Amino acid sequence: MATIDLNCDMGESFGAWSVGDDEAMLDLVTTANIACGFHAGDPVVMRDTILMAKKRGVAIGAHPSFMDLYGFGRRRVSGEKPEDLEAQLIYQIAAIRGMAEALGWPITHVKTHGALGNMAAEDPDLALVCIRAVQAVDPSLTFITLPYSETMKAAQKAGLNVACEIYADRSYTDAGTLTPRSVAGAVIHDPRRSVDQVLSMVRDGFIPTTGGRKLPVEPATLCVHGDTPGAADMARALREALAAEGIAVAPFALPAARA
Amino acid sequence: MATIDLNCDMGESFGAWSVGDDEAMLDLVTTANIACGFHAGDPVVMRDTILMAKKRGVAIGAHPSFMDLYGFGRRRVSGEKPEDLEAQLIYQIAAIRGMAEALGWPITHVKTHGALGNMAAEDPDLALVCIRAVQAVDPSLTFITLPYSETMKAAQKAGLNVACEIYADRSYTDAGTLTPRSVAGAVIHDPRRSVDQVLSMVRDGFIPTTGGRKLPVEPATLCVHGDTPGAADMARALREALAAEGIAVAPFALPAARA
Amino acid sequence: MATIDLNCDMGESFGAWSVGDDEAMLDLVTTANIACGFHAGDPVVMRDTILMAKKRGVAIGAHPSFMDLYGFGRRRVSGEKPEDLEAQLIYQIAAIRGMAEALGWPITHVKTHGALGNMAAEDPDLALVCIRAVQAVDPSLTFITLPYSETMKAAQKAGLNVACEIYADRSYTDAGTLTPRSVAGAVIHDPRRSVDQVLSMVRDGFIPTTGGRKLPVEPATLCVHGDTPGAADMARALREALAAEGIAVAPFALPAARA
Amino acid sequence: MATIDLNCDMGESFGAWSVGDDEAMLDLVTTANIACGFHAGDPVVMRDTILMAKKRGVAIGAHPSFMDLYGFGRRRVSGEKPEDLEAQLIYQIAAIRGMAEALGWPITHVKTHGALGNMAAEDPDLALVCIRAVQAVDPSLTFITLPYSETMKAAQKAGLNVACEIYADRSYTDAGTLTPRSVAGAVIHDPRRSVDQVLSMVRDGFIPTTGGRKLPVEPATLCVHGDTPGAADMARALREALAAEGIAVAPFALPAARA
Repeated sequence: MATIDLNCDMGESFGAWSVGDDEAMLDLVTTANIACGFHAGDPVVMRDTILMAKKRGVAIGAHPSFMDLYGFGRRRVSGEKPEDLEAQLIYQIAAIRGMAEALGWPITHVKTHGALGNMAAEDPDLALVCIRAVQAVDPSLTFITLPYSETMKAAQKAGLNVACEIYADRSYTDAGTLTPRSVAGAVIHDPRRSVDQVLSMVRDGFIPTTGGRKLPVEPATLCVHGDTPGAADMARALREALAAEGIAVAPFALPAARA
Repeated sequence: MATIDLNCDMGESFGAWSVGDDEAMLDLVTTANIACGFHAGDPVVMRDTILMAKKRGVAIGAHPSFMDLYGFGRRRVSGEKPEDLEAQLIYQIAAIRGMAEALGWPITHVKTHGALGNMAAEDPDLALVCIRAVQAVDPSLTFITLPYSETMKAAQKAGLNVACEIYADRSYTDAGTLTPRSVAGAVIHDPRRSVDQVLSMVRDGFIPTTGGRKLPVEPATLCVHGDTPGAADMARALREALAAEGIAVAPFALPAARA
Repeated sequence: MATIDLNCDMGESFGAWSVGDDEAMLDLVTTANIACGFHAGDPVVMRDTILMAKKRGVAIGAHPSFMDLYGFGRRRVSGEKPEDLEAQLIYQIAAIRGMAEALGWPITHVKTHGALGNMAAEDPDLALVCIRAVQAVDPSLTFITLPYSETMKAAQKAGLNVACEIYADRSYTDAGTLTPRSVAGAVIHDPRRSVDQVLSMVRDGFIPTTGGRKLPVEPATLCVHGDTPGAADMARALREALAAEGIAVAPFALPAARA
Repeated sequence: MATIDLNCDMGESFGAWSVGDDEAMLDLVTTANIACGFHAGDPVVMRDTILMAKKRGVAIGAHPSFMDLYGFGRRRVSGEKPEDLEAQLIYQIAAIRGMAEALGWPITHVKTHGALGNMAAEDPDLALVCIRAVQAVDPSLTFITLPYSETMKAAQKAGLNVACEIYADRSYTDAGTLTPRSVAGAVIHDPRRSVDQVLSMVRDGFIPTTGGRKLPVEPATLCVHGDTPGAADMARALREALAAEGIAVAPFALPAARA
């Protein structure tokens, strides 16, 4: 039986500011990527999010970013030395990994955030920085990344566990990458088309591209948005569509599996 | 033979700003307390400081603080919930602990910084927050703290390894605590008197107080300043005075001891 | 005819984080206190808030704070030199004053935020710091502060324009100060009692205290909360109650009055 | 008689961290560009720097930057909306302008910092953002910028006062722009050649380019580095060379000139 994980970015509140309904999303997803304090999140938000996930048995991971609180990690930053960026990632992964262990619910994975994730998917050097940071902290961690990306290639070459991530609401180019948001048709607004795309990828094993190609894919996890209006409803609809096709929803890894 | 450790706060540069001559101090001390990014330090500074210490076999530890970059952790902050402050400490200790392990030179201890350290030494609730944070991350870590302080009491009660810290250049009240800086005679400027005080504590086992009392003490580590003019010279003078008395200088703990 | 201003703190979003429904509140109040980037707000939020206020003719002012983004300016900070705190206030007031002038809607006043406001109301030295900062930037600005406070005394002594601020939902001690939140009965939950208290102060000119005294007061502005659930409803109810009593709602000052 | 201004970036300390010997440089230059808190500087540093400059009659100006304390404004940041960046510049210029007026030593100009300055010199849209921000706060301010740059073109087109800035230790391409640092020969290390280049530009009115061309230039100010080893010595040597050629050193504008 086909199985897919549902992952969602969360823990992105900061201090007095709150964003997203993490509690509602945790009832719907199987894996949570938790901000580590550089683009969002703070130690208190991290602790609360880890405990809410633990209570529900939702797997958790680090969601590190550029150091950019004001820009929410969405601004592209350049001029950083690769080894310095690696140190920043090690810091973030180590911080949440240690906190999660202290709370009895170890992290299972790492997924990079925002501009860093986008840039690393395209840039082999930056991809390597991300992979090296994960391996430095804990080589048993899984790395969530996009198919046909530089990060996927680097992770596989390095022998890192990879969870291939797909999107329901983004179209794919013939190269297997996400259509840039600046291009028409990048975002899929029709829920039915979204579900069909997911089924093609999860059940049938191929990415339908904008050019009409079918690229092979072995998806492990489906990204679900948590901070858009109707996020919980959309996640619920995806779960139902998957269930109707007999596709199980389960985490790609759980802390127990690492013990 | 009597033995004492020399510890120094370092890794307190940030971004483009540099402070202290950490390389020179690392040649003179046996233990380094490294800032964790909340009052000073950043991932790059932390990495560099850890590697410099490893190269010399100097033991390292976490030097966590209030979240106060602008105030260098010296401003007293109140209104924080104890459990939230605990989360902030866990985050910092976990971050440097994970980074240090990734670099092959694990931390041996924790020492709180600035206003947090001062406040915790006086406040049993705050002391408990510090102890709980250390235990949550790694109960095998040693906690450096002052004799006759609330943190010392809380650490001992909790069964945490403690390294009792003494000062060469600060006088002690009859209660065994440091004379507040606002009081005349708080700082000892005469190098000879500083050395005598250290010898009383390390060799003879008692704290000479401003009221003429002799309080028992079992010092494990002597704090050496790294960011004052002539810091290296002072550290060198202390080492020579200790050597002349046949007192060995050695770390109270090393990563090897934990393996 | 009695007149009262309604003021509300706003512009307290930051970067990607949003808080409060400023647009709705601006339809209900006559004066807005805008965060200046130290506890909340950023240049973009400030610009947007100024323009929204200008569009509605709502008077605006600076809402400066301790430098404490993480704590939203609610943490008490000590150990700052008075002249350094004064520089921080001058910076914030100057920043929003210059931006507001650039946008064609000059500020009319200053109201300190959170812990700084609370501490200054009790501490003559800190009160003086606030007054001096306002005078340094622009002595024609009005200072909003509480009756029977150190800031009120300092502002009057310095000859600064003062707008005496009252609360609908907080009880008053016999000294004329707000009952501390830690004391039972500090917050008035009954809307009818809130309205009665406001009418006593605005129409009758006295503060009803918890000890049964009637202290004279000349209120210029009533503080309306913007970030609590039902904030807009509460503001609307207050406006209606004031209207029913024939009390006009109008700003205590407008940019036009300064031209 | 030919005249040139010497300008230097300063006030780039932050909190407990100190950088540069501003006091020494203020004895040697005629204009100071003061950091505004976004890449460096804080309200206390700004106040101190303004007062030190006032004491010596050195003209001051705003030195705004991207919001990037960790990267000291040297990291290229993209993904910011032009109008949002404009708001950030307005905030910074307004803050220092208001503080400087409060201290009785008004600013005369604006010079953008680091990556922002470099990017704006090449990008017409970004150049316009900078010009618009200056004009919004105070159209009488002078804008310091490089010859043959997009910022120079935009400033002149907008009718803004411009002070054309030259470098002693950087070579120029045939396009009149600075040779990128990644190219060999970008930095001039020979003091004699530096002086010759300055004399060509100030006395003879042309830029000697790496391709052997002579491009017309009307320099108003020469940039002197303040944070490199031997900065004061280099500034002194430049002053002597200029004096030997009968070239006067004087600010391009003074607060008095605006009164």
